[in-house]
Amino acid sequence: MRQRNLSRVLHALAAGGPLSRAAVAAEIGLTRAAVSTLVDELLRGGLLVEQGPGRSGSVGRPGTQLLLTDRGPCGVGAEIGVDHLAVCVMDLRGDVRVRAVHATRNQGSDPAVVLHALGGMLHTAAERAQGLGLRPAGLTVAVPGLVARDSATVLRAPNLGWHGTDLAAALPSDLGRVTVENEANLGALAELWSAHHVPPEGGPDSFVHVSAEIGIGSALVLDGELLRGAHGFAGELGHLPVRPEGRPCSCGGRGCLETYAGEEAVLRAAGLEPGPGVRLGALTERCEAGDPDALRAVKQAGTALGIALSGAVNLLDPRQVVIGGSLARLAPWLLPPVGRELARRTAVAAGGRSTPVPVTASPLGPDGPLLGAARFAVRAALDEPAGLLRS
Amino acid sequence: MRQRNLSRVLHALAAGGPLSRAAVAAEIGLTRAAVSTLVDELLRGGLLVEQGPGRSGSVGRPGTQLLLTDRGPCGVGAEIGVDHLAVCVMDLRGDVRVRAVHATRNQGSDPAVVLHALGGMLHTAAERAQGLGLRPAGLTVAVPGLVARDSATVLRAPNLGWHGTDLAAALPSDLGRVTVENEANLGALAELWSAHHVPPEGGPDSFVHVSAEIGIGSALVLDGELLRGAHGFAGELGHLPVRPEGRPCSCGGRGCLETYAGEEAVLRAAGLEPGPGVRLGALTERCEAGDPDALRAVKQAGTALGIALSGAVNLLDPRQVVIGGSLARLAPWLLPPVGRELARRTAVAAGGRSTPVPVTASPLGPDGPLLGAARFAVRAALDEPAGLLRS
Repeated sequence: MRQRNLSRVLHALAAGGPLSRAAVAAEIGLTRAAVSTLVDELLRGGLLVEQGPGRSGSVGRPGTQLLLTDRGPCGVGAEIGVDHLAVCVMDLRGDVRVRAVHATRNQGSDPAVVLHALGGMLHTAAERAQGLGLRPAGLTVAVPGLVARDSATVLRAPNLGWHGTDLAAALPSDLGRVTVENEANLGALAELWSAHHVPPEGGPDSFVHVSAEIGIGSALVLDGELLRGAHGFAGELGHLPVRPEGRPCSCGGRGCLETYAGEEAVLRAAGLEPGPGVRLGALTERCEAGDPDALRAVKQAGTALGIALSGAVNLLDPRQVVIGGSLARLAPWLLPPVGRELARRTAVAAGGRSTPVPVTASPLGPDGPLLGAARFAVRAALDEPAGLLRS
Repeated sequence: MRQRNLSRVLHALAAGGPLSRAAVAAEIGLTRAAVSTLVDELLRGGLLVEQGPGRSGSVGRPGTQLLLTDRGPCGVGAEIGVDHLAVCVMDLRGDVRVRAVHATRNQGSDPAVVLHALGGMLHTAAERAQGLGLRPAGLTVAVPGLVARDSATVLRAPNLGWHGTDLAAALPSDLGRVTVENEANLGALAELWSAHHVPPEGGPDSFVHVSAEIGIGSALVLDGELLRGAHGFAGELGHLPVRPEGRPCSCGGRGCLETYAGEEAVLRAAGLEPGPGVRLGALTERCEAGDPDALRAVKQAGTALGIALSGAVNLLDPRQVVIGGSLARLAPWLLPPVGRELARRTAVAAGGRSTPVPVTASPLGPDGPLLGAARFAVRAALDEPAGLLRS
């Protein structure tokens, strides 16, 4: 119980710090006296620091603000993308302190080679973190595929060509516990946990988070929780049928959203040949330059995305739709057709309200999964204060 | 805490009774001694009875089984349909003891007139319940629309033409607390709570429950909980676009599932003119008789339903799909095309498994909402044993 209360103090400060002791007490529903004892232990353990008028020696004086340390334990996030590897060190406050991205080609590569390269990047990042007075308390890896979270294993990642790959065994063992999570889920969690994301009034948050790198995926946050699905496959927005007898899809179906709004489809529609160096970024540049083929391609993709999202909104009645990942950068051209389809197709779900569900582009963009991974590691560390205080 | 533990004993017996004291203790994670004290209080209060070898005078002897009483408190369910009113009295064991259905035309009727008629049926049912030694401990009303549960008010029920109708004020006040709930939600809850519904192994239940009377609705049970949506509109399966530029829908969209698989659309496709006496039941008879127009119409509807459900399955990754309501009776002809579409369109969500999500027809059929309402009232009563013991 004490560990749980220590953890609640840490999470309260992570979410809303700096806070006074009284504000922490109000936030977590404990007495001021109980919180003071907990805070003293966390101050002694170096997990909290004080600031403000009461700082020097006058512990607990009104005006003293508490915040999490920016030294000591930190979370490490990593991302294995189709054409990049990335690592990121985040302190307990949620600030990114070290970050590195390497362009690579991981599609079809030997997992051992990729994980060796990632291990090297993690080693370098950990050294730089140490130089900043930080010590890794856990590592979370974002992967484009289905994972077994309890064993840190990638079960299937078709875009990488990986099956049954044990990450924990192949990555540095001195960064704390290794967890692995689907990148679309981490993108949505990054959004849920980020400061810019304003929680709705009256009731828990719920949103559809669209992410698209090569395929189109999504993650669903319902009643404040990530929906994983019965087998871990929830969120396959890319395979919603938008033209039931339309283009054949690699999944075996026809007319899936992905065949109209997936990266390859959009690039081809814009007259670009998809390839390792030709990704959605190239399309963004053409849209900015006013290229009519690019603009038309993105508009068509937006219409298809809007049709699929209309289905999702009618089914789930979320508070909002968030476009993340590389698609976020296409927002100026993508959002209008998406909004048009939602407006004409979700009147029932909107209960006759004249304003349909709001659609926004996440400012995190393609950084979402990496930031979500690091934040996941930080939050896991805050869940177990005993481990942080002991180390 | 004691009230909560009394309630847990009652719910354990409602879900799995008859049970021995030891089995109850194992089920709810309390000591045998603690459970015996709770059971004694519930026996004294007349909420439980004993059966088995130890029945007469040897309380607690091994072999004595406990079960909920079939006298005393009961739940009352009611349903306001477009063309019928129904009431049902359910004892604490979940057995239906009184049931009445009246064919009426409620579409566009004055709510006061409809509620007066329903009040009469409830009065008669309560008298019959009293004759069986039962006393109503709460009433739940199923309505085809959006409700404000905390005020027992129908906010909008387009198929009835009702807006802002306060049910509690217009119904008998001697049946206990009045609650109101959407019929599609109650249909899904009836399925979730019913004895025939086998909970999945390893993890909480999740299913899409399709219900169709005039429109097509659904309710989503995810991780064992009903998803209501941010504004109470979740589950609008009928407005998933299945042919995006297809038939105009009353919602303002185009190509919604409802325009292909809704009652009116299917009846017309079968060459029948929809009307008060011509509902899905008539279509079932024609299918049974082998009428080719009826069979073709149901097959087309099944294909459209399968397309929409493919979207839902790809998005939610549920454990199963359950067809309820009037559609359940069309299952022999409806399920094959639904299954075909799911098989070709949900390979990704099925993770490459060769068997797609199972689709079953609920044996509750059109009785689902009424049974769900009564069960809802019973469960609410079991949540508050103090009220039951006092009365």
